[in-house]
Amino acid sequence: MELGEFGLIDLLAKMISSSQKKQSVPYQQLILGIGDDTAAWRGEAGTQLVTTDSLFQDIHFTLSTTPWRELGWKALAVNLSDIAAMGGVPQYALISLALPGNIEVEDVEALYQGMIEMAQQFDVAIIGGDTSRAPQVSITITVLGKARSQNGQILTRSAARPGDKIAVTGYLGGAAAGLEMLTNQLQLAPETTTQLRKAFLHPCPRVTEGQRLVACGVKTAIDVSDGLIADLTHICQSSQVGARVEIDRVPILPAVKANFGERALELALSGGEDYELLFTANDEVMAKVKEVTPCPVTIIGEVVAGKINEVTLVDSNGKSFQPRKAGWEHFTV
Amino acid sequence: MELGEFGLIDLLAKMISSSQKKQSVPYQQLILGIGDDTAAWRGEAGTQLVTTDSLFQDIHFTLSTTPWRELGWKALAVNLSDIAAMGGVPQYALISLALPGNIEVEDVEALYQGMIEMAQQFDVAIIGGDTSRAPQVSITITVLGKARSQNGQILTRSAARPGDKIAVTGYLGGAAAGLEMLTNQLQLAPETTTQLRKAFLHPCPRVTEGQRLVACGVKTAIDVSDGLIADLTHICQSSQVGARVEIDRVPILPAVKANFGERALELALSGGEDYELLFTANDEVMAKVKEVTPCPVTIIGEVVAGKINEVTLVDSNGKSFQPRKAGWEHFTV
Repeated sequence: MELGEFGLIDLLAKMISSSQKKQSVPYQQLILGIGDDTAAWRGEAGTQLVTTDSLFQDIHFTLSTTPWRELGWKALAVNLSDIAAMGGVPQYALISLALPGNIEVEDVEALYQGMIEMAQQFDVAIIGGDTSRAPQVSITITVLGKARSQNGQILTRSAARPGDKIAVTGYLGGAAAGLEMLTNQLQLAPETTTQLRKAFLHPCPRVTEGQRLVACGVKTAIDVSDGLIADLTHICQSSQVGARVEIDRVPILPAVKANFGERALELALSGGEDYELLFTANDEVMAKVKEVTPCPVTIIGEVVAGKINEVTLVDSNGKSFQPRKAGWEHFTV
Repeated sequence: MELGEFGLIDLLAKMISSSQKKQSVPYQQLILGIGDDTAAWRGEAGTQLVTTDSLFQDIHFTLSTTPWRELGWKALAVNLSDIAAMGGVPQYALISLALPGNIEVEDVEALYQGMIEMAQQFDVAIIGGDTSRAPQVSITITVLGKARSQNGQILTRSAARPGDKIAVTGYLGGAAAGLEMLTNQLQLAPETTTQLRKAFLHPCPRVTEGQRLVACGVKTAIDVSDGLIADLTHICQSSQVGARVEIDRVPILPAVKANFGERALELALSGGEDYELLFTANDEVMAKVKEVTPCPVTIIGEVVAGKINEVTLVDSNGKSFQPRKAGWEHFTV
């Protein structure tokens, strides 16, 4: 690294500035981007959203399995996924980077390139951040957004009601299978390799789908980051309900089912990082969702009044099923 | 650490919740705090501000010189100082913590206690964040705020004009002297020790003063974080002007002047972390500022048209003075 901190900030500021979609709404409302004590923009009245997420080297990612560009993409994608899980419109991002002194400038550029691609896809303006030297790479991103409609309706974790159906977008297990493939250097068919790499390294946050859920009248959602069971447990805890999931209905990514045998279900239930939307709604709303959402939507179970905070898994015979693990916690010892 | 990640989040959420000033404006407008995919609040139309800053162990602080409670205070204070430098009103904060697995719960509580004290002082609501395990402590904070007045006037780095006077609030050099005292275990008089400790560990962001500057018609300011010369250079670069500072006018903290001999000036010019406001304005505005600002305001020089981007230091005879260093950059090798 031959650049001082201010040199690095200049380089990144130029990359960001030249990539901005000048006609996008967040950019049009921007007063000050990178280069002052704070960023500033003209806000509108309405429900505002903010989320922050950190990725630490060798805790959340390793450079051996995650190339720089994909790291940048994913770091921003996981934050946009939180806005998606509220049914919101993402607007602005702040990027805090910590980098070791010996890092190559090309790697930092690739990292930023990945973030910029993700930002452009959803018209997000990168308006600030921070760079520090540290022994290991870490990325903390804050994303600001807003409710899409004037009435301010958003998706929370706390509105699930007994009788609601539980559904999930897309397929599960791909990200965890992809990580396993990359970590253990599994040799799979080229098409499978591409698909699992994409699931792990290039998750696409369900931003559009989240907004459609709100429009259909859905009130409860979360994104699948910790794992299906763990995230459904979060909904149960916030809503003070229980949940019953039929394991045979869980939409396992076909490439995972075909290549990971008995472990496929475990990867889908507990793997995490799929960034699909997990949501609940009554039958009428669910029917509407299925009609207007372009991605697959699969009903996997229902919200129940008993067994508060608990997720019960049952097989096709209604027999209770015990999973091997229930998602991961960073601090578990 | 006996708590899992979710246990830690619960503990911190409880500390924050019990400390919230329920009658404060940010809290009144809050829809969702900690515990969902994002935080949410009812925003008003107007100029919005956001800033983020990271502190890394052994880069920005060491646990041998900074106790946990002071670390928490300071981590939030430096972000509020950025809002102060815009003349803004801070409203919401998000806290991302990375902690080693062997950290004591009491230490985390002390860290949070420090942040909560700082937040309460300025009616800031802590509404979200993130916790991760990492080999070393790091804290990334994002603060959201808004312009105080309806017209959206804020302080930027880019509005300095030739002929403006340059002024600074309070005194300089105390933080760097305090760090030196703690690092080298200097034995100074008790009162001096208290004062320098406070300057380094308990900086108070000039939030109120920043808002008064805006009200008086000041348009340009920055906070002194990197050091007087470095931060004045930032103003010069953004405004495309030069600056001339009379070193004899620089308000060195008396305890520093009395105990650090010839190095006192260097600490005041380049030490950084004093979090005073450095600003420029014409004579008329400057007179108004002096009248309404309760803290000391000292004119130290003026903005000049020539020597763009350059800060020239002169002694009382008008002779050029060369400082030993010009502030620090994290990535300089």
